[in-house]
Amino acid sequence: MWHIDRESDIPVYRQIADDLERRIMYGELPPGSVLPSERKLAQELKVNRSTIVQAYDELLATGLIESHRGSGRKVGTTHWGISPLRTPNWRQYAEGGSFLPNLPVIRKIRHEKQHRSTLIDMAGGELSPDLFPAEALKRMTRELDFAGSLGYADPQGDEGLRARLVSYLYDYHRIRTTEDSILVTSGSQQSLYLIAQCLLSPGDAVAVEAPSYYFSLPMFQSAGLRFIRLPVDGEGICPDDIPELHRKHRLRMIIVNPNYQNPTGTVMSAERRLRLLELAAEHGIPIVEDDPFSLTAFDEAPPLPLKALDRSSSVLYIGSMSKIVASGLRIGWLVAPQTIVQRLADARQQMDFGLSVLPQWLAAQYVGSEPFGQHLTQLREALRRKRDLTVAILERELAGEISFSVPKGGLNLWCSLHGEVDDSQLLEASIRRGILYTPGSVFGSGPGHARFAYARPREAELARGLAAFAEAWRAVRG
Amino acid sequence: MWHIDRESDIPVYRQIADDLERRIMYGELPPGSVLPSERKLAQELKVNRSTIVQAYDELLATGLIESHRGSGRKVGTTHWGISPLRTPNWRQYAEGGSFLPNLPVIRKIRHEKQHRSTLIDMAGGELSPDLFPAEALKRMTRELDFAGSLGYADPQGDEGLRARLVSYLYDYHRIRTTEDSILVTSGSQQSLYLIAQCLLSPGDAVAVEAPSYYFSLPMFQSAGLRFIRLPVDGEGICPDDIPELHRKHRLRMIIVNPNYQNPTGTVMSAERRLRLLELAAEHGIPIVEDDPFSLTAFDEAPPLPLKALDRSSSVLYIGSMSKIVASGLRIGWLVAPQTIVQRLADARQQMDFGLSVLPQWLAAQYVGSEPFGQHLTQLREALRRKRDLTVAILERELAGEISFSVPKGGLNLWCSLHGEVDDSQLLEASIRRGILYTPGSVFGSGPGHARFAYARPREAELARGLAAFAEAWRAVRG
Repeated sequence: MWHIDRESDIPVYRQIADDLERRIMYGELPPGSVLPSERKLAQELKVNRSTIVQAYDELLATGLIESHRGSGRKVGTTHWGISPLRTPNWRQYAEGGSFLPNLPVIRKIRHEKQHRSTLIDMAGGELSPDLFPAEALKRMTRELDFAGSLGYADPQGDEGLRARLVSYLYDYHRIRTTEDSILVTSGSQQSLYLIAQCLLSPGDAVAVEAPSYYFSLPMFQSAGLRFIRLPVDGEGICPDDIPELHRKHRLRMIIVNPNYQNPTGTVMSAERRLRLLELAAEHGIPIVEDDPFSLTAFDEAPPLPLKALDRSSSVLYIGSMSKIVASGLRIGWLVAPQTIVQRLADARQQMDFGLSVLPQWLAAQYVGSEPFGQHLTQLREALRRKRDLTVAILERELAGEISFSVPKGGLNLWCSLHGEVDDSQLLEASIRRGILYTPGSVFGSGPGHARFAYARPREAELARGLAAFAEAWRAVRG
Repeated sequence: MWHIDRESDIPVYRQIADDLERRIMYGELPPGSVLPSERKLAQELKVNRSTIVQAYDELLATGLIESHRGSGRKVGTTHWGISPLRTPNWRQYAEGGSFLPNLPVIRKIRHEKQHRSTLIDMAGGELSPDLFPAEALKRMTRELDFAGSLGYADPQGDEGLRARLVSYLYDYHRIRTTEDSILVTSGSQQSLYLIAQCLLSPGDAVAVEAPSYYFSLPMFQSAGLRFIRLPVDGEGICPDDIPELHRKHRLRMIIVNPNYQNPTGTVMSAERRLRLLELAAEHGIPIVEDDPFSLTAFDEAPPLPLKALDRSSSVLYIGSMSKIVASGLRIGWLVAPQTIVQRLADARQQMDFGLSVLPQWLAAQYVGSEPFGQHLTQLREALRRKRDLTVAILERELAGEISFSVPKGGLNLWCSLHGEVDDSQLLEASIRRGILYTPGSVFGSGPGHARFAYARPREAELARGLAAFAEAWRAVRG
């Protein structure tokens, strides 16, 4: 990535020359590679062509690059005065490896976010900074007594935090568990990753909601898993689809997000919850229950998680602080049979030697505390306001052109767009107008869907962002 | 694992019944499984047989277990009054998965550590708690201003920390780099894991020092890599072995720990460093340089890392705070070409969404600060004292029966034992006498070697621990 700092004291041509030099020295531009033409680079960097000429001249003088009549400029093959060295082919290494890179559209979204700070971000499923309880966390951080060990933490997670989670899980979710059955993780993502790596094998069939967040994660493909789709309607998945799918594919696991499903916002009905549990138990299929949003419920007490009703020990329960406190703390948890907790803890030791003690100590103070309860009350109110605003703006700007269900919790609003449109054109047009959202295809749905994460922007940005989206929609629709 | 808490107010039989009940409810003991006999369980738990009878009677009364004349006791098949449910076969799930569990001997060592707190631990390659700069870290934690975002951190790591690392790497290691070429990781383990998962593919040949730490990590096998051995002598590996090995195996990577190698303590000679760099460049083979110990150097300035001499951009450099500050912070770094940093950052987002902001903020204050420098001076002195003590005790207790080189840095002393002995018998006998160490086979060496991690025990424990080892040695040697 090019970073030109226009406020720097270093002249722009010098910044460009320095960056090129670094790339050459670090093997990103190996000896002999062709450099972009002056015109092209000038366009890309939005500078005058003369600035590029000046930068190239600097490098020509050092011998780092060479000028060839007719074929433009190349990285010198004799830099450092040493005869040509075979720098490792880093690009090939970066493109290899068994672990798959993120989806191109996800990388594009991340790239735009990093490089265009004025974009209104309705793609990131996280809270806006003003919704983090920063003051309470700062105060509690000051009060940490550092009485615990600064050595490697218990592979299952800090004992104090696990003890606190036992009460929290009962008080807030009516889940009965013990410290031995909890694995502290860095969040839902790590819980899912450990499950995919350690409990499943290449070729295994895993049933997931369609659409769902899980389609956006190539890590499941990296693990060689086959996704079997469970379509979501207004009451969640239809559990009675499962026996037939199990006969056909031998399901090894079912992954669901019953409360305020990501992206659709659906709440699974009580009847279907019980039926799902019954069928999973009958066929001995484990359920992974991903529950990031329960405590965001705006209007009503959220339904109890499956885990609270799980009589046959079929459910692995995943929770985290990311969507309700602060994503940057990186604290989550998995409730599972002890055999599973131990297996995953052992694997994580190999991957990263466990979590930092600091955020664990802080979480042990904060989760379930009085300030935590007060924060949740405020959070729910703020999210309800943002949801109401989003709904009102969409109804005003795009009446009759889109449809959606009003979510009762979570951070996302899922839209179906009426009429045909090319999803990538729509995304491009929206980005040009300053608004970022996630196209439905990322979640495994067909064309003509969009997910708006309404928690991330500040209230004032919502109207601006959604109006820009409506404009983009009108510009590209057929 | 059984935990009987003899100081608890809950009677022991009740604790046993509760634990069994939990295992049954969580599916660890599925319906129909046979329970251990009273005698066997009594022995295992070191309680009276009547206590077990009482515990089983409790569970019989609830219907959770059933008594069958002649075939002992089994978990009931109708518990919860519901007809038999097929709890998922959790044991099978735990034993499946493509990610391999840790080596049995590593799991044994960890188990003994957790359950016998009186053991003197010379197996764990970490500092003793008194060597962590707890006061300075606590003070700096109090001063954190929480000005940064509590949202998801930059995938490459906190910018402030990366800026700090750029100066640190130059000041302490003469490595020139930029913020864009640094990936903040949770430690060397995560750096190695990301490299194995993302840059290498199953079947790839990787050359590693023999013996080395890397043999203790099944994660390389999980990634399907083949290890090619580079024997270590008093000056490190012999680089001139590489061309022949490369012809035969097509080496995709070379992993080395040139300063105070783990476990042997060897420092690679200057001549071999240059030759290694030269050959790697000639053949375009990347080098991974793992450098956890440089700043522990007791007697002299440590040699410059390979990365400081790397003219062909062949070296991925791995460092961390774990062995020099505190392992529980979980902060490390990788210096690599930008292409590689971006690839690994993208993959880590999929695995765990990056690191917690708290330890990153703290590290950004601490690394390279004045208190950091003062701490290092004290640390080096303390480690030298422990090393001297270890050497003196071993020379006294086992003169003529073992040999070793005196390490000039690092946390480990590597011994060859004279005479034949069964490694697992020796480990068992040592544990019985209260001392834990790591047998050489863990590091890929033949029988008759041991690694003593002398930093972990307090000074007073060293004499007791090593005397116990000497006793064990005399008891089992042939």
